[in-house]
Amino acid sequence: MTWLDPPEGTGFGLDDLPLGVFSTRGGPRRTGVAVGDAVLDLGGLTEDPVHLSGSLNAFLALGPRAWRELREQVTDWLTQPSCRRGVEPHLLPRDGVRMHLPVEVADYVDFYSSRHHAANLGRILRPGTPPLSANWLHLPIGYHGRAGTVAVSGTPVVRPCGQRRADDGPVFGPTQRLDIEAEVGFVVGTPTELGVRVPVEDLAEHVFGVCLVDDWSARDLQAWEYVPLGPFLGKSFLTSVSPWVVPLAALEAARVAPPPRDVPLQPYLRDDAAPWGLDLALEVRLNGEVVSRPPFAPMYWTPAQQLAHLTVNGARLRTGDLFASGTVSGPDRDQSGSLIELTEGGTEPIRLADGSVRTFLEDGDVVTIGATAPGAGGGRLSLGEVSGRVEPAR
Amino acid sequence: MTWLDPPEGTGFGLDDLPLGVFSTRGGPRRTGVAVGDAVLDLGGLTEDPVHLSGSLNAFLALGPRAWRELREQVTDWLTQPSCRRGVEPHLLPRDGVRMHLPVEVADYVDFYSSRHHAANLGRILRPGTPPLSANWLHLPIGYHGRAGTVAVSGTPVVRPCGQRRADDGPVFGPTQRLDIEAEVGFVVGTPTELGVRVPVEDLAEHVFGVCLVDDWSARDLQAWEYVPLGPFLGKSFLTSVSPWVVPLAALEAARVAPPPRDVPLQPYLRDDAAPWGLDLALEVRLNGEVVSRPPFAPMYWTPAQQLAHLTVNGARLRTGDLFASGTVSGPDRDQSGSLIELTEGGTEPIRLADGSVRTFLEDGDVVTIGATAPGAGGGRLSLGEVSGRVEPAR
Repeated sequence: MTWLDPPEGTGFGLDDLPLGVFSTRGGPRRTGVAVGDAVLDLGGLTEDPVHLSGSLNAFLALGPRAWRELREQVTDWLTQPSCRRGVEPHLLPRDGVRMHLPVEVADYVDFYSSRHHAANLGRILRPGTPPLSANWLHLPIGYHGRAGTVAVSGTPVVRPCGQRRADDGPVFGPTQRLDIEAEVGFVVGTPTELGVRVPVEDLAEHVFGVCLVDDWSARDLQAWEYVPLGPFLGKSFLTSVSPWVVPLAALEAARVAPPPRDVPLQPYLRDDAAPWGLDLALEVRLNGEVVSRPPFAPMYWTPAQQLAHLTVNGARLRTGDLFASGTVSGPDRDQSGSLIELTEGGTEPIRLADGSVRTFLEDGDVVTIGATAPGAGGGRLSLGEVSGRVEPAR
Repeated sequence: MTWLDPPEGTGFGLDDLPLGVFSTRGGPRRTGVAVGDAVLDLGGLTEDPVHLSGSLNAFLALGPRAWRELREQVTDWLTQPSCRRGVEPHLLPRDGVRMHLPVEVADYVDFYSSRHHAANLGRILRPGTPPLSANWLHLPIGYHGRAGTVAVSGTPVVRPCGQRRADDGPVFGPTQRLDIEAEVGFVVGTPTELGVRVPVEDLAEHVFGVCLVDDWSARDLQAWEYVPLGPFLGKSFLTSVSPWVVPLAALEAARVAPPPRDVPLQPYLRDDAAPWGLDLALEVRLNGEVVSRPPFAPMYWTPAQQLAHLTVNGARLRTGDLFASGTVSGPDRDQSGSLIELTEGGTEPIRLADGSVRTFLEDGDVVTIGATAPGAGGGRLSLGEVSGRVEPAR
């Protein structure tokens, strides 16, 4: 029935249709849609300035109606035989384009919404105290990260330097505990005015879509600096995001209820009526080998709750705001989204297929995080990948 | 010798020349220079698109040579009799213009660099533990704030809602401990690439100038949320900045050495050769009455050290980055930059001239922070003011 039939295993089917920003050699940045092993060049096809602006922001600012209309239009273009002649010349091989940061990030907030991750870190970093802080079950803990060092997948991960604790006081040098954090990010399109709260039911009015996030972390820098104001340089050297932003509209079949609540929630956080838990399956590969399969469904706090919390004090949203879930870790060790959990704080190294062992990342290591979700048609759709290679400290 | 002779007491003399963004009724936003009780309309005078872009960012991005050249040019315009005829029509009464946010803020970082403030807060909030955390003397503690809720002086301070701790678990409602934080902010013009460190001696290559900051704080929200990832909603509802950015070049006479160091510093933080302590005198007024006079000279960490620390891990700078000093508090109670210190955690109210008492802010309260500095000519120059009026929760 459709003229375009993406081959199996290429990742992005017709129920996916993620947006990204790409260029071909020497050409300007423009918006594209990933489908199969191709990119549909929206900039070239539509000649709409919105798709030629070099980031998704201008399109995201148009709001949910425009998002829906484009999705319907692209579906028509890629399926209606009558559209083939006009559209096909704008399908480019995906392996021939260069991907860029899809969104000019306004504010970047990182949450801490996996109960397993929070409890693991509490146990590893603060032994002898309760693994969850007293507030954790009552609100989605989060903090602001550095928007300016959010970069697209493939950006080199230069090992950062900084202070870390040693026996005789702090020492300075390259981090010795370079880690990953496998996360899911949510990209805001529709802004709000100062003072406006976004209710839990309005997630899809404001959030356009989802990307994958690797919030690279220098655990030794972080451990020394983070009391009392939270993580700073241990995180701000690089946060990588996947180049393709999958519309929330593609994830309807992935919606699930979050885990049962241990304590009653404040009304502004109750989302039982139409919960936004998401049954995403993440996969973390270290030098090509799968080392973890973190499930997103057990996340305690949903993106709808995160957004409601983020704005309950009147903080405004801007187009391009990015908020991330926090490290995604499941109940089992091999479902952990960070090496500090996979190796129990670096005390139990993991062994790779080549016989080498790892606690934290070594120079030259490549980490790739991918994810899939149930698709509309019963199959699975791809959220793409975010990847980075560790380079030596400068 | 000069044709323009700003009357005494109007704040901005010829050695000051701060930049801001203003509009007149119905007109577009453009860049101006404050001098005496006037604004020199740079947009109108030069017709340079850089000064008609609606924020200072385009000009700040031009770098220190352009900043110097403009300062020399403006000085000539305002002093050379031959310039008078061309320039005078572009001098507008300052009380007839509307001021806007001077800078499109990229990332906002808030430090914690007053030893007196950090020790006071440690004592008040964490009694029984050492007042300074173990890292405090070794590095300038900082964290990222919300860039999107930085707003210009005069923006209403709507009392934020959120969760706070109560005897039977958290409750939700308007903050009951709304506070100020009197700070000094530093505005970055020249960006860097990812991976580049800014040495302490390069402050003036990257930072264009200084503004005043009121980092409004909801102490009860903050106390409940901030463990373990730092302040979030307790701060992100509003951060106010003064409209006039005073060039660093105007503050040469204000430079002083910071206090002696208790512990040796890592080499990247040593700035003994040409330190950037600043002898600024802040003044906090509550409903018109001076309640505190925080001195900036005793700040333990200088802006040069803050910038060197911020970038030592390779975090890049963008034009429009704003980093603030943290609350400025001197050794004496009446030199405190926050009400939580002035009132000893709300236990010792201050009495105002009208007979009323305050622990934290009440609806209708107006807080204004001003500052002056030694000027080049032996007098004092103004850093302007940042002000806000508290409105009831919505």
